[in-house]
Amino acid sequence: MAERRRITGFSNPTVKAIRALREKKHRKAAGRFLAEGLRLLTDARESGRLPEVLVLSDARDPHPLLAELEAAVAAACGEVLETTPDILSRITGKGNPQAVAGVFAEFDTSLAAIDRSAAPIWLVAQALRDPGNLGTMLRTGDAIGAGGLILVDDCADPFGVEAVRASMGAVFTQRIARARWEEFLPWLRSDKGQLVAASLRDAQPYRSAPYAAPCFILVGNESRGLPEDYEAACDLRVSMPMKGRADSLNAAVAAAVLGYEVLATLQG
Amino acid sequence: MAERRRITGFSNPTVKAIRALREKKHRKAAGRFLAEGLRLLTDARESGRLPEVLVLSDARDPHPLLAELEAAVAAACGEVLETTPDILSRITGKGNPQAVAGVFAEFDTSLAAIDRSAAPIWLVAQALRDPGNLGTMLRTGDAIGAGGLILVDDCADPFGVEAVRASMGAVFTQRIARARWEEFLPWLRSDKGQLVAASLRDAQPYRSAPYAAPCFILVGNESRGLPEDYEAACDLRVSMPMKGRADSLNAAVAAAVLGYEVLATLQG
Repeated sequence: MAERRRITGFSNPTVKAIRALREKKHRKAAGRFLAEGLRLLTDARESGRLPEVLVLSDARDPHPLLAELEAAVAAACGEVLETTPDILSRITGKGNPQAVAGVFAEFDTSLAAIDRSAAPIWLVAQALRDPGNLGTMLRTGDAIGAGGLILVDDCADPFGVEAVRASMGAVFTQRIARARWEEFLPWLRSDKGQLVAASLRDAQPYRSAPYAAPCFILVGNESRGLPEDYEAACDLRVSMPMKGRADSLNAAVAAAVLGYEVLATLQG
Repeated sequence: MAERRRITGFSNPTVKAIRALREKKHRKAAGRFLAEGLRLLTDARESGRLPEVLVLSDARDPHPLLAELEAAVAAACGEVLETTPDILSRITGKGNPQAVAGVFAEFDTSLAAIDRSAAPIWLVAQALRDPGNLGTMLRTGDAIGAGGLILVDDCADPFGVEAVRASMGAVFTQRIARARWEEFLPWLRSDKGQLVAASLRDAQPYRSAPYAAPCFILVGNESRGLPEDYEAACDLRVSMPMKGRADSLNAAVAAAVLGYEVLATLQG
């Protein structure tokens, strides 16, 4: 077992630097993000992602997965820190901290890193502002066998603590790309790919639409929906029944209902 | 137009009492809750729900729907207050306050108030802890033509600010009931009704299951899922494809995917 560095001071610079990753500007500056909990970190490890820094609570219970995680981090020349539950609380911002947290290098989020032939479905979100919705879309993407999530225009940060939590580990398994619409559309059109929007304008029923792989499912901003010209650029506009007063669904819900429909269609 | 009472002091007892409704214990004591925004309050009015107290920002822009709302509240002998944007911010807890907020009496949330024959679908959540998920389920229920949401065991408060916001007005259109499982199950079995759970145990594929109205769709707690004996009490256990690493969906997503499938089946 590798040597662990022990930290007990709240004002320790390492603690401060890790804690700062809860804020977007510090994540951006450091190119690092924070994930917490044995389950999440085990998902990461099994997906081939190891933290550069592993922070263990000295009040943790022994667990074989924790031992495997620590060994893997040490073998990859990562750093293992041990600290008090109080300090771990301070790092994660949770009153009831998990036994472990990790600092990860952010992934390449360029469109160029996406291999569209790797999966039949891709989720695309435009100006999605809620980190919980973003994380939920990653989680849904994992469930439907999507390749990843493409974030178009100004979206919430996929590496924020809330998005990572809501993704339930899918932040490590789904590809994530970020692009402006002006980059995304030419990239999409440079190869095979059907762009489908949940829409109210000129739309056909979502249950019988001719989905085709690779299918890119586009949902818009939580309050404004998709810009009209974005919808117009889609190959297919589909609508879900709206039997009540409202005319829209939560963005993550719309992506999931449509995603499962596309999956069922593609599987024939 | 009725006379408006003008309030300009942060320490005004009315302001304090309204602001206190952001906390569950005060909502419970007062039997009142808070909703904000012209759109939400218009949805409420059109669903036959008027606030007892209407709070207007003195920086609001004139709007015909706002005038109609004020007139309706005054005609129903409700109170109309006018205050500063700062105080309205303080009441709603939002930096960028809406032009209007309202105080509503909580509704009857007993099972006895539910007429199951009024709708083909009902959503049921067990120990749902996230108010955003709860509000999203109400919103989805509105979209699929559900009659309402039955909250079993200890759930988040449907009248909390976050749940009301996430419901996008559906808190006023969907019936809401609260019950322990020990009350819910006998009530369900006292009349026609199919109880369906999203489950991994002994489940059939959700796309071809024999759903029947009135169909009660049950989802469980965000981290623990449903207790095994609750699942065993269901008429139908169905599973959605899980093609990735995760073995579950977000609770509100699961309810929506299943809800849309039930809707499609019942509509033939």
